[in-house]
Amino acid sequence: MTQGLNGITLESVQERDQKDPLAGFKAHFSLPEGVLYLDGNSLGAQPTAARQAVNATLDQWRDELIKGWNQGWFDSPERLGDLLAPVIGAGQGEVCVTDNITLNIFKLLGYITQQAPTERRAVLSEGGNFPTDGYIAQGFCQVSGFEHRFLPEGAELAEHLDGVAVVVLSQVNYRTGALRDMAAITQLVHDHGVEVIWDLAHSAGALPVHLNESGARFAVGCTYKYLNGGPGAPAFLYVHQRVQDGGWQPLSGWHGHAAPFAFDADYAPASDISRFRTGTHSALAYTALEASLALWSEVDMQALREKSLALTDLFRDCLSDLFNTHGIEDITPSANQRGSQVSLIDGENGYAIVQALIARGVIGDYREPGLMRFGFTPLYLSFEDVWQAARHFREVVESGEFKDPQFHVRGAVT
Amino acid sequence: MTQGLNGITLESVQERDQKDPLAGFKAHFSLPEGVLYLDGNSLGAQPTAARQAVNATLDQWRDELIKGWNQGWFDSPERLGDLLAPVIGAGQGEVCVTDNITLNIFKLLGYITQQAPTERRAVLSEGGNFPTDGYIAQGFCQVSGFEHRFLPEGAELAEHLDGVAVVVLSQVNYRTGALRDMAAITQLVHDHGVEVIWDLAHSAGALPVHLNESGARFAVGCTYKYLNGGPGAPAFLYVHQRVQDGGWQPLSGWHGHAAPFAFDADYAPASDISRFRTGTHSALAYTALEASLALWSEVDMQALREKSLALTDLFRDCLSDLFNTHGIEDITPSANQRGSQVSLIDGENGYAIVQALIARGVIGDYREPGLMRFGFTPLYLSFEDVWQAARHFREVVESGEFKDPQFHVRGAVT
Repeated sequence: MTQGLNGITLESVQERDQKDPLAGFKAHFSLPEGVLYLDGNSLGAQPTAARQAVNATLDQWRDELIKGWNQGWFDSPERLGDLLAPVIGAGQGEVCVTDNITLNIFKLLGYITQQAPTERRAVLSEGGNFPTDGYIAQGFCQVSGFEHRFLPEGAELAEHLDGVAVVVLSQVNYRTGALRDMAAITQLVHDHGVEVIWDLAHSAGALPVHLNESGARFAVGCTYKYLNGGPGAPAFLYVHQRVQDGGWQPLSGWHGHAAPFAFDADYAPASDISRFRTGTHSALAYTALEASLALWSEVDMQALREKSLALTDLFRDCLSDLFNTHGIEDITPSANQRGSQVSLIDGENGYAIVQALIARGVIGDYREPGLMRFGFTPLYLSFEDVWQAARHFREVVESGEFKDPQFHVRGAVT
Repeated sequence: MTQGLNGITLESVQERDQKDPLAGFKAHFSLPEGVLYLDGNSLGAQPTAARQAVNATLDQWRDELIKGWNQGWFDSPERLGDLLAPVIGAGQGEVCVTDNITLNIFKLLGYITQQAPTERRAVLSEGGNFPTDGYIAQGFCQVSGFEHRFLPEGAELAEHLDGVAVVVLSQVNYRTGALRDMAAITQLVHDHGVEVIWDLAHSAGALPVHLNESGARFAVGCTYKYLNGGPGAPAFLYVHQRVQDGGWQPLSGWHGHAAPFAFDADYAPASDISRFRTGTHSALAYTALEASLALWSEVDMQALREKSLALTDLFRDCLSDLFNTHGIEDITPSANQRGSQVSLIDGENGYAIVQALIARGVIGDYREPGLMRFGFTPLYLSFEDVWQAARHFREVVESGEFKDPQFHVRGAVT
């Protein structure tokens, strides 16, 4: 392998690792031996501190019992929100960690449409977005009487805003990795008298997000992908300070009440971001996430972005000749329009290639039709890791290893 | 203390422990030294198996990463539902462990009212119930256009069902511990053409619940009280098999889709209990609960009920003379109308008595105005524990220890 991959040598990438300002973060993750993990866009790896944090919370449950709620559990949605805020360009008091993305979109749809002008009675979902964003918008419309519409993939947004109260858009597309210009689109949507909810599932922790600077008022996102909060870690919700006093959100539970322990009969929303809480949350889930968020305070987001682009380009550069000779289409967007993933299409062999890679310990994922997705997480992937993953990819394809029938059996979830 | 408490000797309760068929369960819990815990109605104690289970899931996250979702995480809402079903008298496939009570009530309100006759446009909440049940009903009404009403405490239910589509009732009242006759009330409500959602927060795991036998069609409950699932453990939702094919629930997320991994644009609900799932759930939270639910398969629910009544009566019998002489009102309902708690009122000193007890390691809780609540959890409380707690109560009151100013300072959460 000293001859390199498409001319890129192992020695050259090892040199890049030596100069990498983020290289030290890898030591803060517990990674399994023999695995090259390119699926941090689905579930992030485990921060080493998570185990100790979770066990400390188990101790607290055992020893302090109900008193644990006074010792940090109750306030964790706001405390973790404040830890997360700098990572997504939000201010203190603008982010609440709570529930999941599906539920948080519902809350914001209810909150926003409550004040929508009477001529704006539609909710617009993005065609080709991760489906739950559309599903919950449809559920909201069914119960509220709003009309649900899909923005066709590739259509001009401005031409589909008539009568729309709110549109839900992903900053980074989960399939292609395409990155939207949040500031420009937010401006355009607001200019049409419409609100936008940004879904940051594939951008939070993947690249610098500038919610305040972009003029964004509402956003949601998850913490189990690039933020490494653990499987099914709680999601977050962002509401700009200036629009936090707009009334009820419909999933009005006691933790979102202005005085949760007064036990008043009637609901009255908290005056701040806490109004977006619902009921009691899992202390174990929050503590794992908190351990991960503590790492982010030390991350230089600009360095993260540079490394993300470098890693994604390295993978593609190591393989571009192979793509050409084997009919694999690289649909990864150009650098300034890219999240932190590489997207390749091979309608015939994509599934089998991904399975053959998994058998070698190189974990990516596959989405019909033909899409191979590889996520690049700058905190725990080295340049050498990416080079080695590319080497496996090349070997799997060039050797025809993927043709083994075992790699063509369709499983359940990937 | 050999003279006993109100004539009840320590030796006599030790004898009862020796004959207790449930005594062996205490060894399955990790309990702090020096604590007598009478607050399992707020947060249950930790099953010893929870720590190992949570650490095994941490291992799984670390080593299996995304594959963990194929190794038990994804199906845990239904699997844990089936584990829980026998404890609440439900059948297999009728219970889903998901989200929290607040959210589950919203789902059922949406699901039920979707098919409500046009003349029934109101949702009835129970005055004096735990407030979140009313708050979320108000939120639902605000977004759906239904009318929200409160049933006044103590009012005749039958007289308040005109125009009502659905009523939300707690089987056991969180303040008084009063137990409702689920079968009779379900029948009455159905006879009026109305549906009822039962909240089992203070009955599931506290006493035998007979959902199917009682004719109940819809219920919700939490798992962090008598079911010992951990702080903020996921809640559950029950829908009778015969009414599971009724259409959408409004919090329609991808985990509730008929084909969650087909990534269809339009929502189509799963045909079974899975339709009540929303988005991605915390694997860590579920695994702690699963460790607890495994214990319940060995619990004789009739023996549990008998011990619950015996423990609550023991506490009261040890103190009834004291209640009389010190103006403490015992509002605990009679045996067949009681959950698993003792409720005492002392408007002047209740708060301070509870604080003085906590200082001695006897954990109960206090609710304004004047209410002292003590929960009795038959799996990890012995007769001697209860006797000792009563001894402390007697000493705190008789000595005037509670008069110390430190016990009158009002804290935040209790």
